[in-house]
Amino acid sequence: MSQSIAANPNRLLPADPGTRSIARDLLQRVQDLPIISPHGHVDAAVIERNTPFPDPAALLVSPDHYVTRLIHASGVPLDRLRQPAASEAGSEGPDSRAVWREFCKAWPLFEGTASGYWLRTQFSSVFGLDRDISAETADASYDAISAKLLEPGFRPRQLFKDFNIEVLATTDDPLDDLASHRAIAEDPTFHGRVLPTFRPDAYLNIAHPAWSANVDRLIAAAGDGGTGYAGYLTALENRRRYFVEHGAVSADHGVRTPATLKLDDADAARLFDRARSGEATAQDRDAFEAHMMYQMARMSVADGLVMTIHPGSYRNHHEQTFEKFGPDTGHDIPFAVNYTEAIRPLLQDFGTAEDFHLVLFTLDETVFSRELAPLAGFYPSVYLGAPWWFLDAPDAMLRFRSAVTETAGFSRSSGFIDDTRAFCSIPARHDASRRIEASFLARLVAEHRVSEERAHELIVDIVDGSPRRVFKL
Amino acid sequence: MSQSIAANPNRLLPADPGTRSIARDLLQRVQDLPIISPHGHVDAAVIERNTPFPDPAALLVSPDHYVTRLIHASGVPLDRLRQPAASEAGSEGPDSRAVWREFCKAWPLFEGTASGYWLRTQFSSVFGLDRDISAETADASYDAISAKLLEPGFRPRQLFKDFNIEVLATTDDPLDDLASHRAIAEDPTFHGRVLPTFRPDAYLNIAHPAWSANVDRLIAAAGDGGTGYAGYLTALENRRRYFVEHGAVSADHGVRTPATLKLDDADAARLFDRARSGEATAQDRDAFEAHMMYQMARMSVADGLVMTIHPGSYRNHHEQTFEKFGPDTGHDIPFAVNYTEAIRPLLQDFGTAEDFHLVLFTLDETVFSRELAPLAGFYPSVYLGAPWWFLDAPDAMLRFRSAVTETAGFSRSSGFIDDTRAFCSIPARHDASRRIEASFLARLVAEHRVSEERAHELIVDIVDGSPRRVFKL
Amino acid sequence: MSQSIAANPNRLLPADPGTRSIARDLLQRVQDLPIISPHGHVDAAVIERNTPFPDPAALLVSPDHYVTRLIHASGVPLDRLRQPAASEAGSEGPDSRAVWREFCKAWPLFEGTASGYWLRTQFSSVFGLDRDISAETADASYDAISAKLLEPGFRPRQLFKDFNIEVLATTDDPLDDLASHRAIAEDPTFHGRVLPTFRPDAYLNIAHPAWSANVDRLIAAAGDGGTGYAGYLTALENRRRYFVEHGAVSADHGVRTPATLKLDDADAARLFDRARSGEATAQDRDAFEAHMMYQMARMSVADGLVMTIHPGSYRNHHEQTFEKFGPDTGHDIPFAVNYTEAIRPLLQDFGTAEDFHLVLFTLDETVFSRELAPLAGFYPSVYLGAPWWFLDAPDAMLRFRSAVTETAGFSRSSGFIDDTRAFCSIPARHDASRRIEASFLARLVAEHRVSEERAHELIVDIVDGSPRRVFKL
Repeated sequence: MSQSIAANPNRLLPADPGTRSIARDLLQRVQDLPIISPHGHVDAAVIERNTPFPDPAALLVSPDHYVTRLIHASGVPLDRLRQPAASEAGSEGPDSRAVWREFCKAWPLFEGTASGYWLRTQFSSVFGLDRDISAETADASYDAISAKLLEPGFRPRQLFKDFNIEVLATTDDPLDDLASHRAIAEDPTFHGRVLPTFRPDAYLNIAHPAWSANVDRLIAAAGDGGTGYAGYLTALENRRRYFVEHGAVSADHGVRTPATLKLDDADAARLFDRARSGEATAQDRDAFEAHMMYQMARMSVADGLVMTIHPGSYRNHHEQTFEKFGPDTGHDIPFAVNYTEAIRPLLQDFGTAEDFHLVLFTLDETVFSRELAPLAGFYPSVYLGAPWWFLDAPDAMLRFRSAVTETAGFSRSSGFIDDTRAFCSIPARHDASRRIEASFLARLVAEHRVSEERAHELIVDIVDGSPRRVFKL
Repeated sequence: MSQSIAANPNRLLPADPGTRSIARDLLQRVQDLPIISPHGHVDAAVIERNTPFPDPAALLVSPDHYVTRLIHASGVPLDRLRQPAASEAGSEGPDSRAVWREFCKAWPLFEGTASGYWLRTQFSSVFGLDRDISAETADASYDAISAKLLEPGFRPRQLFKDFNIEVLATTDDPLDDLASHRAIAEDPTFHGRVLPTFRPDAYLNIAHPAWSANVDRLIAAAGDGGTGYAGYLTALENRRRYFVEHGAVSADHGVRTPATLKLDDADAARLFDRARSGEATAQDRDAFEAHMMYQMARMSVADGLVMTIHPGSYRNHHEQTFEKFGPDTGHDIPFAVNYTEAIRPLLQDFGTAEDFHLVLFTLDETVFSRELAPLAGFYPSVYLGAPWWFLDAPDAMLRFRSAVTETAGFSRSSGFIDDTRAFCSIPARHDASRRIEASFLARLVAEHRVSEERAHELIVDIVDGSPRRVFKL
Repeated sequence: MSQSIAANPNRLLPADPGTRSIARDLLQRVQDLPIISPHGHVDAAVIERNTPFPDPAALLVSPDHYVTRLIHASGVPLDRLRQPAASEAGSEGPDSRAVWREFCKAWPLFEGTASGYWLRTQFSSVFGLDRDISAETADASYDAISAKLLEPGFRPRQLFKDFNIEVLATTDDPLDDLASHRAIAEDPTFHGRVLPTFRPDAYLNIAHPAWSANVDRLIAAAGDGGTGYAGYLTALENRRRYFVEHGAVSADHGVRTPATLKLDDADAARLFDRARSGEATAQDRDAFEAHMMYQMARMSVADGLVMTIHPGSYRNHHEQTFEKFGPDTGHDIPFAVNYTEAIRPLLQDFGTAEDFHLVLFTLDETVFSRELAPLAGFYPSVYLGAPWWFLDAPDAMLRFRSAVTETAGFSRSSGFIDDTRAFCSIPARHDASRRIEASFLARLVAEHRVSEERAHELIVDIVDGSPRRVFKL
């Protein structure tokens, strides 16, 4: 039975006994600090309405592309794991219990993976399962979790409190009315902060199939009567202000590459018009998207929203899967990026702008030591985004710290970002991050590179100070 | 004397005593499992004819580009280490004993290298030398190994048995008649499996100097009377079938880049014709080679041969050396590759094809975490090729596991590939791999990320299950 | 108080007690060896004139871009840390004590960084501070260091001796008369070697603003009456000879990329003339710079100067900062490089040239295992440059050894290069390097990959033998 490992107090800590003991001490100083989650994908309505979570499969398997992708790799077609996209006529999802059985059968595939770690921790600490799941006990674990989900203690708001979450940022469409966020903020019985995040990709990226329709709606809703490129910029500024008024602290950008470009207004308007009439070339699209990153930085300088950039993923790599199941279904594949030249136009004008915060993420680990640490170690605006997506895992997080710290120290990092839509995994993810930070620092202490006293301060600053400072919380 | 380290039971295992003890336990569970070698370069005729191995230098030094390259780097001209290429008129190889003396003199250069580790292990465990070799004892070690090579126990078939090899795949020309393989298979006194591998590079790559002549011979031999591009495809299909009938389980492709491309038949035929008449441009060549990778995948889907791709080496980097000594003489130098976009056309059509196995290798470590683990963690067809060539070494193998496991787990790897033409090094290489797998897993156990029970199963699956499953053995 | 860690005898050594004990033993064998510094940026005049060092801020903070960059990143404008460039009319530097206070306030930012480690070591071992610096004690530490700087024992020549420096190479303009070097060499009371290094970037790189003026001066000074491209080559050859006569052992090249190219004389002369008349395109510039690398290699083969190449940094990334503060002010940002194809033209002709030494550096770690170790493991001319600049740090140095050793062993590395203009940091940097080499080797010993006897020889060869051999000292 591998139950014990999920509850082991030394999990993820270094094997060397002396270093482990230092890490235990450091961990203990941050283990009970509240969770600050400045970027993620939980739906605010879930918190607002406080509706019970659905069954185990619908909660933990079907919507989680980390999970379905690896089962799919083992040969299980996706339609046995998740609902086809709505566009698929007459489609119906697979039976939840059947999905759960597939998952339990596939559970051994997750050994050594980050997802497996988060799931096992949830099973143990959230759902109280006292042994590892398995194909043989699939129905029993399904029933046990289902029963828990019906308990009042498993409603989102109670879990939010039990998980000790202080701040939870969501990711939202620029035209979202943010009604759920407002309702939560105005509810005197709820004490957590649920903050919207401005995410305008589908309004900036000409290649997005709905771009022109989105722009129509955007200008109509918030263009102040303006039209064309000018109305478009005005509308973006207005919607950003609306988000700020509703508590947003950041604007997030999922772009193909980190390219930025400053066009003059006339050129930008020309590209915009060409795109609106469907005549933009691939080059136009790249230039316009790069230019809009420049514009977003300009607006962030003006309205104070922290700017976060997530580039370098080839979205929807497998067309057939995309057609049948839509986006975010496990086949976004990273590629090499180059930040140094790409981000330069933006940094020329805003790199030292007062109170501008720019958090740079990457799926290409090679840029951590080569580009991001040097950039964040000079520009006051630039912060190192925490290891993201495929890199949000114990070994990868240690590689990150090793790659950036010697150049940029600890003060230039964003703090942990869980980036998750899996609400129940949030404590496991933050706990894993704290354990890894403690492990890294403990090694530096053991090697007499940082004193114990200073490490005590650093661990608190890394876990609690950094996200508050970087995300202006 | 450094003799003792080659025989030390803890060699390559982690220094931390607790982790080492776990690793010892894991290693002990796989140490006696048979060797499965699904990709390598031993000549089947050596096994068939069971001829004695030549002298120590001709066995261990001259043909091994890992070995001669480092001695060459120290300033010893290659003609003091290996025979010039046959094309060199009147050339004669250096004296074996003189080569061995050069090697012994250069032996300290190999400290810390993978080659040094394999050689030292062979000296100790295969040839029974009880002390490290040295310049001073060069003649003595030459004589000792020479004497061993004359013993009947050192004939290839006996070593094959003593090495506990179950399966050994060779690498063969598509027009090879596979007579040695057939003879071995039909010999009731020999119990190992020696399998051919279809390796068509010189028939697919227009840039190969013998391409057109090869294509002539190919079409003549197996084109079923067809001509041109159609006859060419038919001949390739026929020769693959011939390989399948003779036990082949895989087709291997040494390409410059991992580019793939689907051309329609007319376009492909046009490129083919242009190449045949010597008019292909560099662009044509790239497109045709990429298209033929697509065709190879199509054929693998049809005939079941596992497809393996080995890209990213700048072959014959030093022209003078190539002219004098030919290929595979130590100056193939890796460069950066990008799989994500390059392999996409192939995966669009075959990524989820039933029973298609595609094993992707790389010499560019950066793609392990960034591209290969994400690809293998979604596409059922894609497997992670084991660390290859310069990366087939203790630290590099640990970096590989650390880079891929958190995304793809353990089930998506090919299992160890020795890829060697050095028959006597095979046990040392597999042993090293098993020690590293045990070391990596032991760390996960020590960090409570994998339970001991599960690690016991995983180590056996990694060493024995994976190669059987991935290579359909 | 973290004072103790800077003096801890186990600092930087591995935490595992068994490995640490081996490392201690190895370290003890090299700790007292003289410092050999074959590449750096100390001004020879400082040694020649033996003038006292200025105040603490002017010595340790203002001129050190490693230090000012991280304070700048925290939001302190550079003009509070360093003097604006001379071009800035009427500019005056900040008050030294005020700079020191800023630095002390910012000191916690340096935890975990390489700069922080070097500084702390200097405070402890050079300046005898018995506790860590802090904002509260800024004036006291300023006064304590100031007092030390006035003592005769803190004059450059006494420190040179106390630091146990045997060889110190400077970096010099090709037209420098090397008077300081000559004076030092001719001074019978001074026993160290201070060697010039030929650094012709500003004479080779057409894009350099002063290129044409520099070429005028170069040809006038040393062209032997020749003009144009021929006079230019002659002048370079003559100045190199002048450097050789004054003790230089190497020529250093700070280039954008590692591109090399062999042009025939007529083409090169044409590019040269076009550049002289201000008509060179960006492509011309790249081609000419690449060609001049080929020429520098040719000259090195002839005159014996070791050729070192430092590519891959985007110099002066932030234009405003460059305009106000000039170059080397902390915003040079690395980017990805590719050596394999780029260096090939040079290696075709000179890769096996007798006694030619080519030391290749990189800021892009990915090329260590992928390109540099394979190149250095074949070409007798190629040596692996030590981890440089952002990579000259404990973890990065360990990654370097892990990345290259399994392919290239220990014999193909340059030995440690401090590359510093901070004279007082030299002992700390060499000490850190020795500790890391001992740590890496100790792990190989603990894993029974290298015997203890052999490790004893290797550590001495790495620290003392390699730089002497590679730099022909």
